[in-house]
Amino acid sequence: MTGNCDNKCEKDQRMNNFEYYNPTRIVFGAGMIAELGRLVPDDAKVLLTYGGGSIKRNGVYAQCMEALKMVEVLEFGGIPPNPTYEVCMRAVDLCRREGITFCLAVGGGSVLDGTKFIAAAVPFEGDPWLFLEKRGEVVPKDALPIGCVLTLPATGSEMNPFAVISKEATREKRAFDSELIQPRFSILDPKTTMSLPRKQVRNGIVDAFVHVCEQYITYPVNTPLQDRQAQAVLKVLIEEGPKTLTDPFDYDARANVMWAATSALNRHLQVGVVQDWSTHMIGHELTAFYGIAHAESLAIVLPVRWRLDKKRKGRKLSQYAREVWGVEPTKKDEEAADEAIDKTVTFFNSLGMPTRLADYGIDARECAQKVRARFNERGSAFGEHGDIDGNRAAEILLQC
Amino acid sequence: MTGNCDNKCEKDQRMNNFEYYNPTRIVFGAGMIAELGRLVPDDAKVLLTYGGGSIKRNGVYAQCMEALKMVEVLEFGGIPPNPTYEVCMRAVDLCRREGITFCLAVGGGSVLDGTKFIAAAVPFEGDPWLFLEKRGEVVPKDALPIGCVLTLPATGSEMNPFAVISKEATREKRAFDSELIQPRFSILDPKTTMSLPRKQVRNGIVDAFVHVCEQYITYPVNTPLQDRQAQAVLKVLIEEGPKTLTDPFDYDARANVMWAATSALNRHLQVGVVQDWSTHMIGHELTAFYGIAHAESLAIVLPVRWRLDKKRKGRKLSQYAREVWGVEPTKKDEEAADEAIDKTVTFFNSLGMPTRLADYGIDARECAQKVRARFNERGSAFGEHGDIDGNRAAEILLQC
Repeated sequence: MTGNCDNKCEKDQRMNNFEYYNPTRIVFGAGMIAELGRLVPDDAKVLLTYGGGSIKRNGVYAQCMEALKMVEVLEFGGIPPNPTYEVCMRAVDLCRREGITFCLAVGGGSVLDGTKFIAAAVPFEGDPWLFLEKRGEVVPKDALPIGCVLTLPATGSEMNPFAVISKEATREKRAFDSELIQPRFSILDPKTTMSLPRKQVRNGIVDAFVHVCEQYITYPVNTPLQDRQAQAVLKVLIEEGPKTLTDPFDYDARANVMWAATSALNRHLQVGVVQDWSTHMIGHELTAFYGIAHAESLAIVLPVRWRLDKKRKGRKLSQYAREVWGVEPTKKDEEAADEAIDKTVTFFNSLGMPTRLADYGIDARECAQKVRARFNERGSAFGEHGDIDGNRAAEILLQC
Repeated sequence: MTGNCDNKCEKDQRMNNFEYYNPTRIVFGAGMIAELGRLVPDDAKVLLTYGGGSIKRNGVYAQCMEALKMVEVLEFGGIPPNPTYEVCMRAVDLCRREGITFCLAVGGGSVLDGTKFIAAAVPFEGDPWLFLEKRGEVVPKDALPIGCVLTLPATGSEMNPFAVISKEATREKRAFDSELIQPRFSILDPKTTMSLPRKQVRNGIVDAFVHVCEQYITYPVNTPLQDRQAQAVLKVLIEEGPKTLTDPFDYDARANVMWAATSALNRHLQVGVVQDWSTHMIGHELTAFYGIAHAESLAIVLPVRWRLDKKRKGRKLSQYAREVWGVEPTKKDEEAADEAIDKTVTFFNSLGMPTRLADYGIDARECAQKVRARFNERGSAFGEHGDIDGNRAAEILLQC
């Protein structure tokens, strides 16, 4: 990457105009699953979607069914991590056959993203994969209403219009968005997160952390409120995240992490600012090609993405160093940025999160080649300057 | 006020359960009034409400009418500061007579609050003052949809379900709220604020500042994210507010203050935390009895409210001292709290805002008597411990 700030970043020193709309009703706290009866329409025919079945062991499923006893409920389980088009299309068939009128996702971001796709696909005539392949061109015109009982703080999907879906057949992982797939409500009971495996807790903290970074560590356009709100979420994840690993039953820490993860990607940090998202785009390919978890892929890419673009991201990186990591204000910007990157890696590692491709036995050169070819084929480029193309992604991956 | 933390504050050390719902679409930035045509329904019959008529001099009215040229628009001007029941009821008659289907408020918080009342009153059979007199018992079942073009950053009414209305006949100032009166959209163009009189700018900054304080300076229930988000808004008002007084045409500062004022009362700072609002309740009476502006009343009451309850508010006051005002971490809590209160008063004064009843020629003893009598008559008590009754309000006012 070239070092100097290009014309675009010199010009754009003013807060971007923006539109913000977030109609999801958040129902937060211990015992709130009981509110489902009030939140789901009386005359709904519900499809309750879930993942591997942990909700049947930890009591969440029973709480949902108790709250929904006056409503007709069908089930669709087995939505996998990185929810696949292939599995979701089976649920779409079921919805059409049974005349489902409401989708209730019970689980984490994968169940929710899969359910968002299902909800938009049901009324669509044609192949709904087009929502992802031709994002922005082919868009949902209608969708079943969605509700959510969240059990894993991580993706922010519970309060945003985004969904990421994978296609097994072609090893692709793509995103789409629509106001129509934003949940009508999401119930967040921190107690439901107490039985999560350590690895999912760790991944959730890192996922939320990187979401904030993608909206914050770019170049400044004079948005002190958004910057401080981003720092607030990062600090809470740094302080409260480890507590949830030390004592899984610390309600306060669970509640704080859960609300922080939702706040990390409910769009209020991104209003008016410049966004990156190249770590996500490269990370998605690591998941698509090698099957490593989403958060794991982000922890590998982010530090190198920052190191290789340190000059252009310098003002935000040094602000982040000082405000989030307490790096001395007297330190030079470049040193402060280096220190912040090191501290970020140390934080990820302290949660038990690897940060190198080699930790997963992945060969960096082979990986770089694959991702370069895919991005070149699609002609896509990402990042706040729109210049992270196949070649630059390969440069990054070679150092991962 | 008694010094020690009572049972309630000892018990409630856990984040409160909460419900958060905010469906207002924010359309923010220079030139965005042109979006009105897209945001108002094609078939609407619009009542455009406004205040003293500054919108006809500063170009805002012309921009609105240009954007709405395909829609039928009637006007209702003259909504006063502290909008009155009496004036609003004339607009209600007009809406009923003309079959208005959409209300567009163009102005600041007073125009907007008046319009919220009008929108809820139109379909109501009975005296709509009951929404305020019997708040929570008599509630709107329906309301005309509302849109807003905001020209004065201050009250947060553009993104919340609250409205405050005054009744001239009885010198009362009361609040009500309903999801039905929350604006469908609010357009915030920072340029529209550049022609505001200095006094309104000053009042707006103080109003937003006190809104944050009412949701933040209470007692802690382990909500580090909400606390930091509150601090973020306060810091931006402290840093950017004065810039808008020094250079009225500083777009960046105008934009930051405008977004901060909306963020101060769009309900996301109040989720899960303990709230006060006694400064507002006492301040409303100062406005009702003596006609001083809302923000002016808050600047008088807040510092004394804090001084007299310094022990129970001590943990939050000292956190505020350190995080917002940079008071040395080594200082004792009580000293830090004192310093924070002094700095707050100095900040208000630096904006040209008086902080004493005497500055308005109001006799503190007479004022205390009037307010005591009114609160006692209503049997109302406020504040985070629910114990700021007529007698305590009088104690506060005697020292104002």
